[in-house]
Amino acid sequence: MINTNVMKRLESIVGKNNVHSSQEDRIAYSYDGTPVLDSLPDAAVRAHSVEEISKILQLANEEKFAVIPRGSGTGLSGGSIPTKDSIILLMNHWDKIIEIDRENLTALVEPGVITADLHNKVEKVGLFYPPDPGSMNICTIGGNVAENAGGLRGLKYGVTKNYVMGIEAVLANGEVVNLGGKNVKDVAGYNLKDFLVGSEGTIAIFTQILLKLIPKPQAQKTMLAYFRHMTDAAQTVSDIIAAHIIPATLEFLDQATIQCVEDFARIGLPKDIGALLLIEVDGHPAQVADETEQIIPIARKNGASEVKIASTEKEANDLKTARRSAFAALARAKPTTILEDATVPRSQLAPMVDKIQRIAKKYQIRMGVFGHAGDGNLHPTALTDERDIDEMKRVEQAFEEIFREALDLGGTLTGEHGIGLAKKRYLEKWSSSGEKELMQKLKKVLDPNNVLNPGKIFDT
Amino acid sequence: MINTNVMKRLESIVGKNNVHSSQEDRIAYSYDGTPVLDSLPDAAVRAHSVEEISKILQLANEEKFAVIPRGSGTGLSGGSIPTKDSIILLMNHWDKIIEIDRENLTALVEPGVITADLHNKVEKVGLFYPPDPGSMNICTIGGNVAENAGGLRGLKYGVTKNYVMGIEAVLANGEVVNLGGKNVKDVAGYNLKDFLVGSEGTIAIFTQILLKLIPKPQAQKTMLAYFRHMTDAAQTVSDIIAAHIIPATLEFLDQATIQCVEDFARIGLPKDIGALLLIEVDGHPAQVADETEQIIPIARKNGASEVKIASTEKEANDLKTARRSAFAALARAKPTTILEDATVPRSQLAPMVDKIQRIAKKYQIRMGVFGHAGDGNLHPTALTDERDIDEMKRVEQAFEEIFREALDLGGTLTGEHGIGLAKKRYLEKWSSSGEKELMQKLKKVLDPNNVLNPGKIFDT
Repeated sequence: MINTNVMKRLESIVGKNNVHSSQEDRIAYSYDGTPVLDSLPDAAVRAHSVEEISKILQLANEEKFAVIPRGSGTGLSGGSIPTKDSIILLMNHWDKIIEIDRENLTALVEPGVITADLHNKVEKVGLFYPPDPGSMNICTIGGNVAENAGGLRGLKYGVTKNYVMGIEAVLANGEVVNLGGKNVKDVAGYNLKDFLVGSEGTIAIFTQILLKLIPKPQAQKTMLAYFRHMTDAAQTVSDIIAAHIIPATLEFLDQATIQCVEDFARIGLPKDIGALLLIEVDGHPAQVADETEQIIPIARKNGASEVKIASTEKEANDLKTARRSAFAALARAKPTTILEDATVPRSQLAPMVDKIQRIAKKYQIRMGVFGHAGDGNLHPTALTDERDIDEMKRVEQAFEEIFREALDLGGTLTGEHGIGLAKKRYLEKWSSSGEKELMQKLKKVLDPNNVLNPGKIFDT
Repeated sequence: MINTNVMKRLESIVGKNNVHSSQEDRIAYSYDGTPVLDSLPDAAVRAHSVEEISKILQLANEEKFAVIPRGSGTGLSGGSIPTKDSIILLMNHWDKIIEIDRENLTALVEPGVITADLHNKVEKVGLFYPPDPGSMNICTIGGNVAENAGGLRGLKYGVTKNYVMGIEAVLANGEVVNLGGKNVKDVAGYNLKDFLVGSEGTIAIFTQILLKLIPKPQAQKTMLAYFRHMTDAAQTVSDIIAAHIIPATLEFLDQATIQCVEDFARIGLPKDIGALLLIEVDGHPAQVADETEQIIPIARKNGASEVKIASTEKEANDLKTARRSAFAALARAKPTTILEDATVPRSQLAPMVDKIQRIAKKYQIRMGVFGHAGDGNLHPTALTDERDIDEMKRVEQAFEEIFREALDLGGTLTGEHGIGLAKKRYLEKWSSSGEKELMQKLKKVLDPNNVLNPGKIFDT
């Protein structure tokens, strides 16, 4: 525990009202979106200026306690779970959209801005911020940058790092740096900004983020295609790309997920199909029309039993419901839902889904698979009960095997959730010694007292 | 000088025929594309495997000599200029395009591949690698990645870093790392790959590079517009962006450059106009037609005296000649041409060009300005003679003032050429102590004996 004297010094930095250390407060911040993991912080602290954050970090170095930054706590890899002798540094009240610069196509925001709020604000002026993680209605931009969050539009539009132009951040030693800016091209010195993106709160606390915006696509068209087999859906994905069409959204659900969604949402999905694809193309109206016309026969050629095309925005939203409900539908089937994000090169989509389904069977786990077909980012989702020790053990074994298979197919442990606590044992086990050593060296030189989110990504 | 014994050990690693240390060889590798700077290496060395490079670096650490990687030597910031006790590590014979993966839209290349050769190869199969630095017919992909090179298509398509998916590299200690891969989304651990991009040969030697490709745009349209004043051209740029059109190319030439180009290329440019804009839109044919129709009245509204629209590929190439000849035309006016790349946010284009023209006048320097209007990346180009000590001093003062003005407008010292030797005094002078310290710490931990391209970017 952080001692009373240090707590008093924290209070003197941020004010007594901004240090929350009652048992209730501590419990409230003991977990995030990741199942199974939790741990009590000593306190949750709200700072209100860059200077306060800087002082907190200086104190942390002096007194050797840990600082765990937290936005909305929606993370799925345990990135904001407290560690021993730690405070949670709350950032969700840093929620101002400071500027939308329509000439330079940028948005300057505080890290606590909710992703969907930014979407709404910029779309009102005809602009577009593409990254759209599943939790966009509640997650924060700061968290998105810390995890380099992805989303449904990754294939065509890239992920969070492709939109971060500048970062103001407090480093572990309390020093404030301002990296990047409104210049489209900038190669002055090392690319420190992009190194901070995806650093999972272990290198710096973000205090301002400058984001790139693009013009909002003029038109979009949404389609839903049903397939007997996952391989047919995967071949459709390959053929769409081979036709040089890059859809904004190219998502799939496997049979287990479809059945859960239909039980939950009753939207009329046939429960006997093997897979469905949700496809959305966007851009110039003529391009959208052309691409739609090309995609339909591609799906049919690959055996699609039905291709639905939305003709209104309402219809488009209805078609999207299947994909949007996937997580909620799976989550209600059993008490504990473990959503992972094993990712493979797009060409390995069908083999990987097949492997996941075999592994689930082998370990007798109920598992649905859905995700981003266009970018190979899969969400194998185990439906389990954390009180069932035996089943939980099998779930763990199954996931270990899934990750190993993903790596063997040229994939990665995590496409968009981060390593955090949840996957560091796999990173430890399977990443090359050169890469591990490189990461540890960098962490050590940038945070020698290990005060920023210690023990996340790798052991220190 | 590196002693004979060490030279013998180098020969035993790569073979005697691959260590070039005659006076002629040393002179041939004493300079790159940067004016004024030169220095003799002790030898130029060709390695033929990752293992050989690894052994060279191990020897460099043991014997404390410097290793300077070099592709085609077209760099404009002195990145491949030899330093004291150094060898040039030649990489231009690592020129294989190993794989074009049409399913995952990637190209795996060795670092010595010429950028334009890659363009040609991928375009033959309907794919597209957008980064197109001015020297693309001779520069190498490895150099592009080391400098995070830009080019004419930066506004719409981004720069080199946006296309680097994976890097195999030898670190300063000789360790080989494999970062990134074919996964569109990958957040497993720190973003080390993007940290290597733009590290100017000071952190690692690249041995393989995996690049992202996109489908080749179906259509394009090229336009050339003449303006009386630079401010009118700049307003046209702003209005095009405000109309939510993002051209693939949006380039400008100022009056001094136009006059040089016309004297050189005789393509019929009016020599009394204040600026010209070269605009190219690309994408779906209908989008291209629509955007062309919108751009013409925007240019006219801003006083364009003439807007030429290419109706054939030949006409398009003719229009592009004005922009493509800019550097060659300026370079023949006087013996020494110093091409810089001060960059500002797009909204500051007109004020910045105005400042450059005033500064050139103040210091009585002949200077043309051209560059990438769409992304604020300017090329103020001094026409001088390095034997004229007095004028060279004024050139230096003028550039110092230009860089200071760029920074004051929210700009950067370099948009696409890198810091190297040429601009490190400005980085030293004007970057924040926090940022400098951060870079030095990283260099020190990753290259403790300072063997990789020492003294570039900052003093060590």
